[in-house]
Amino acid sequence: MKTFITDNFLLQNNYAQKLFHDYAKLLSIIDYHNHLIPEELAKNKQFSNITQVWLYGDHYKWRAMRTLGIEEKYITGGGSDKKKFEKWAECVPYTMRNPLYHWTHLELLRYFNIDSLLDSKSSDDIYSETNHLLALNEYSAMGLLQQMNVESVCTTDDPTDSLTAHQELGKAKSNIKVLPTFRPDKAYNLSNVEQYKSYIKKLESACGLTIEDYDSLLSALLNRIEFFHQNGCRLSDHGLESLVFVENNHLNEGKIFSKALEGEQVNPEEGEFFRFKLLTFLCRAYCDHGWVQQFHLGGLRNTNHRMLSKLGPDTGFDSIGDFSQAEMMARFFDHLESTNQLAKTIVYNLNPADNEVFATMTGNFNGGSIKGKVQFGSAWWFLDQKDGIEKQLNTLSNLGLLSCFVGMLTDSRSLLSFPRHEYFRRILCNLIGEDVKNGLLPWDEKWLGKLVGDICYYNAKNYFDF
Amino acid sequence: MKTFITDNFLLQNNYAQKLFHDYAKLLSIIDYHNHLIPEELAKNKQFSNITQVWLYGDHYKWRAMRTLGIEEKYITGGGSDKKKFEKWAECVPYTMRNPLYHWTHLELLRYFNIDSLLDSKSSDDIYSETNHLLALNEYSAMGLLQQMNVESVCTTDDPTDSLTAHQELGKAKSNIKVLPTFRPDKAYNLSNVEQYKSYIKKLESACGLTIEDYDSLLSALLNRIEFFHQNGCRLSDHGLESLVFVENNHLNEGKIFSKALEGEQVNPEEGEFFRFKLLTFLCRAYCDHGWVQQFHLGGLRNTNHRMLSKLGPDTGFDSIGDFSQAEMMARFFDHLESTNQLAKTIVYNLNPADNEVFATMTGNFNGGSIKGKVQFGSAWWFLDQKDGIEKQLNTLSNLGLLSCFVGMLTDSRSLLSFPRHEYFRRILCNLIGEDVKNGLLPWDEKWLGKLVGDICYYNAKNYFDF
Amino acid sequence: MKTFITDNFLLQNNYAQKLFHDYAKLLSIIDYHNHLIPEELAKNKQFSNITQVWLYGDHYKWRAMRTLGIEEKYITGGGSDKKKFEKWAECVPYTMRNPLYHWTHLELLRYFNIDSLLDSKSSDDIYSETNHLLALNEYSAMGLLQQMNVESVCTTDDPTDSLTAHQELGKAKSNIKVLPTFRPDKAYNLSNVEQYKSYIKKLESACGLTIEDYDSLLSALLNRIEFFHQNGCRLSDHGLESLVFVENNHLNEGKIFSKALEGEQVNPEEGEFFRFKLLTFLCRAYCDHGWVQQFHLGGLRNTNHRMLSKLGPDTGFDSIGDFSQAEMMARFFDHLESTNQLAKTIVYNLNPADNEVFATMTGNFNGGSIKGKVQFGSAWWFLDQKDGIEKQLNTLSNLGLLSCFVGMLTDSRSLLSFPRHEYFRRILCNLIGEDVKNGLLPWDEKWLGKLVGDICYYNAKNYFDF
Repeated sequence: MKTFITDNFLLQNNYAQKLFHDYAKLLSIIDYHNHLIPEELAKNKQFSNITQVWLYGDHYKWRAMRTLGIEEKYITGGGSDKKKFEKWAECVPYTMRNPLYHWTHLELLRYFNIDSLLDSKSSDDIYSETNHLLALNEYSAMGLLQQMNVESVCTTDDPTDSLTAHQELGKAKSNIKVLPTFRPDKAYNLSNVEQYKSYIKKLESACGLTIEDYDSLLSALLNRIEFFHQNGCRLSDHGLESLVFVENNHLNEGKIFSKALEGEQVNPEEGEFFRFKLLTFLCRAYCDHGWVQQFHLGGLRNTNHRMLSKLGPDTGFDSIGDFSQAEMMARFFDHLESTNQLAKTIVYNLNPADNEVFATMTGNFNGGSIKGKVQFGSAWWFLDQKDGIEKQLNTLSNLGLLSCFVGMLTDSRSLLSFPRHEYFRRILCNLIGEDVKNGLLPWDEKWLGKLVGDICYYNAKNYFDF
Repeated sequence: MKTFITDNFLLQNNYAQKLFHDYAKLLSIIDYHNHLIPEELAKNKQFSNITQVWLYGDHYKWRAMRTLGIEEKYITGGGSDKKKFEKWAECVPYTMRNPLYHWTHLELLRYFNIDSLLDSKSSDDIYSETNHLLALNEYSAMGLLQQMNVESVCTTDDPTDSLTAHQELGKAKSNIKVLPTFRPDKAYNLSNVEQYKSYIKKLESACGLTIEDYDSLLSALLNRIEFFHQNGCRLSDHGLESLVFVENNHLNEGKIFSKALEGEQVNPEEGEFFRFKLLTFLCRAYCDHGWVQQFHLGGLRNTNHRMLSKLGPDTGFDSIGDFSQAEMMARFFDHLESTNQLAKTIVYNLNPADNEVFATMTGNFNGGSIKGKVQFGSAWWFLDQKDGIEKQLNTLSNLGLLSCFVGMLTDSRSLLSFPRHEYFRRILCNLIGEDVKNGLLPWDEKWLGKLVGDICYYNAKNYFDF
Repeated sequence: MKTFITDNFLLQNNYAQKLFHDYAKLLSIIDYHNHLIPEELAKNKQFSNITQVWLYGDHYKWRAMRTLGIEEKYITGGGSDKKKFEKWAECVPYTMRNPLYHWTHLELLRYFNIDSLLDSKSSDDIYSETNHLLALNEYSAMGLLQQMNVESVCTTDDPTDSLTAHQELGKAKSNIKVLPTFRPDKAYNLSNVEQYKSYIKKLESACGLTIEDYDSLLSALLNRIEFFHQNGCRLSDHGLESLVFVENNHLNEGKIFSKALEGEQVNPEEGEFFRFKLLTFLCRAYCDHGWVQQFHLGGLRNTNHRMLSKLGPDTGFDSIGDFSQAEMMARFFDHLESTNQLAKTIVYNLNPADNEVFATMTGNFNGGSIKGKVQFGSAWWFLDQKDGIEKQLNTLSNLGLLSCFVGMLTDSRSLLSFPRHEYFRRILCNLIGEDVKNGLLPWDEKWLGKLVGDICYYNAKNYFDF
């Protein structure tokens, strides 16, 4: 059976096809935010079967399987890799209209040249065919990136990380840059003081400094920023429900920190104040280092404690929140801007109801000589599908300048997710092509081709300057 | 004049037409949530004119008439049935692009075989033609359901209801099941203690038990759940602004209840705590009985007190709220899930800005072996139109599994609303057909036809298991 | 090069073309809300170059230029008018898909008959061509309105305004009515008591009354309402984050006012209470005078204080807020409705996530004999583009009666913005035409043409009755 994913998949008119085939698809990939495991890249891991590289850690697929009523045993439990693949194959036809249906077949086609539809009937064949290929050199961790024409990837790393894997990769002089990203969420999360204290211990040993008060915490973090910078890091990342700005003369970040170090409980008000203060400090340091700071906002995490206690975080029990965002985000950025210390910034929004809030917010802090200084980030996580991507692109177009957008990233834990860049590029070209077809844009191939290239590659290239 | 509602109304491509005509339209209707009056069904009421069956109680039409500036006399007032119909007929052309325009003509066509457009000119003819038909046996209450191929309907009933009408209908052995739904909103609403006290009196006489404290309230409600269950009830329903989870060591539900019974005012904090506690108790009981629990969330009710005092509730003065939903809903479900007492659940959302919050929330509590255990409910009330239905279907598709959806319900007070199932099915088939046409889905008729059948009928059949 | 703006720009089918060319485009313009400067109209100002009439004061363009990284010098700074135009021309191709791209070329075509695309290459020619034309009589302030077939415009004026310009215009007996709008935002804004005190001084001298307490404040404002009314004003306007209803027995508006007059700081709670009380008073006065009251809700203003201190307000540093709207708006209107003192009302919404909340809210307070008494206002500010306009029209259609809509306004500070009415009309006709094409509406040209005419002109004509 011929796959439905043809050359012109998602490209519904000639203009779109031209823009994709002659411009977008020729460009390399800068995947500036993902959750790949640097050690797997450094060791150039070879996977024993497709379940390991495709289903392990993929909570998108897990949620779908749970919705269909598949037992947990075959999702994250003790079922065999073969059986888990079968169960996933059984589920695939039920994912109709979910991005998983497109991703699944796009990935099978691009990495394994398989154009059959995955279901219970094709499951066995596809399992053996993919496993056969995965044994080849070209299917090693780095090989998989190579196949997709990846130029650089940015992983997501804790300040306490040794970056050994990144250093090894740097020495190996691969033509693919693998760079770290500074993600200090644990450094300002006082919700559990015992966990926080052990984290501080880890941070101490990472930087070889003693952390006995707030000032030494700042020194330690600066030390790590410096270390990350030396190892090629040019980005930070933060996962928060929302950004806040707090004015409170009765609270003192130093005292709160000391309290936590002594194992005393910190109340939510103190916790939020501390996070605000420390985050502000970090943001100023990013600005000093010329980094790009990223904020992933709006997730409601760990909603199901019965499953959290069984499987831990990031296993498919998070969803979209409806937190207030606008006023506090404005005040937070205003605070940094007031001293001219607002770094290049990308805000990612998980609740599409907030798209317009985020897109207009970025416009409040643009200026100077940086093209697209504050960015409304790509459709993220739950929104990473045709509708979500189109909404983000349309909102950005209507309320800002699409032409300045730094474009797509996978945000994925899986080495098989890179066709999402192709997916994004097809959607982008199709939107622009449709506008031309409908007379909303004049057809000037060079002009539109150039803007498409900017969004797919060159804007990111210039903005991050790795 | 030939009606605009052709065989292929809403079906914009061949795939859609195939899916609708060969699959969707052949299936019976399971209308698992509505507000039909069981007594009218038990008595098999015959309506004297179309105004009575079509305009009485239809606050959708009332709102439209008020917007056009038609006097209240001809809406809910003392105007004659004939005159009221004329006024509605006058209004219809002004409802262009509102779902009322489609519903009106679809209903005239399906029940009365009338394909003229309703307006001032056609008003007289249509009034007499429909009234003539309404006198026939096939146009009795049960006859109207029969005509639409209805298999089962679930009405919405207070715990104090005697269910006599349902029992009579059961004995009559009609081929249409008419089942009750347990809607206990009054049992946890302490906003007016005098009304609450009379409600408790009614509850006492319904179950023949004395309610003197919180424990006996629980016994009384359990007694009614058992009674409803024996009478075929398999569903509960709740209308709330939002779900809440409350932790408060200073409050006690028993004391709050006693306070209310003694006629003392209960403050909002106490009222909310009481509602949370009692609702939790009820939800656990539903789980024990294998019921499906429904939550209709997000309505802002009784906004216009001048009209409320004249016409009472549910007369067209409610609208869409913008309450916070995500965090508390997660905690409420988590609380039930923590002891494995979360029943099958459907959450309906009135503010489409929350669609993504609701659709992802359901995914947090799926699992076990139940297909589609927690459902993102069908587009409801104000959202029950082409755009609203498409948004719900698209959101569900993107963020969950459309294939597991239990589908449409009328939620209506009118016996003439059942073509809304056809309306939904056409929209569903059209969406899928458009995806095929646009290359987003491969064309495999058997596969897609089966999924369409599941969504229109079989999923509900299995999920509710009446 | 032939412009992409053809006769059928945005009109994607025959029905749309028919409705636009034979109905919509023939009608005059009632621009019932804008920010034109009445003095420029009274003096019939002639502009020395296109930068002055097109770029000065246009913060939409400024935001785009800042996003691209153009220096502030060429935006609001000391750069020459020529250079500023060049920089804007350079920016235009980067505004692809933003409404600026359409507006720019539509305005060049309609006012100057220029159908080249504006960019760095065409910049010089277009600069000299437009400047040449701007020197002609037909390009005076009133001439520009004349060219666009404008029948009446309503400016936005402070209660302290002398309305001299409006009076001069009235005497000049132009065929274009220029009427004032009463915008009293400063009268209830106590956030800065020093500014407030000087405002009260200004108000005193405007009406020649002494304001020494709350009662005399009310008299002064009534006096101004009367004065505005005599000068043709039939509308008020209010810019607020949200509407509120406050019950508080401990506060007294008279005392709060006295406090402010004495220069004492007023806390936020007092400020909100005062605003609520005074606004209620004003709304009742509007009702007495038969005015239409407008509320522009949801803006988050002055987010960037560094730039605010340099450039002042309304310079492109505002964005979309996510305030709670529904509950308090309902209570505010209910409060006025309870005494039958709710004037004709238009609510404009800046956050499209609230579209459905606003559209259903209006339906709660319709009734009586006024067609479309409470209106869901046109897509506003950031939403004034094809997507935003379509969303507003679709939401209104789905949840209310599009047929009763009073339609478009420019809300603009620029005399070159009037083709936005054409833009709106094309979008409206296209939506209706697409519905006909897709079988969602029957094709009855007279009926649809009449409704289009109502929305573009006649509804406003009757509703405002200038």
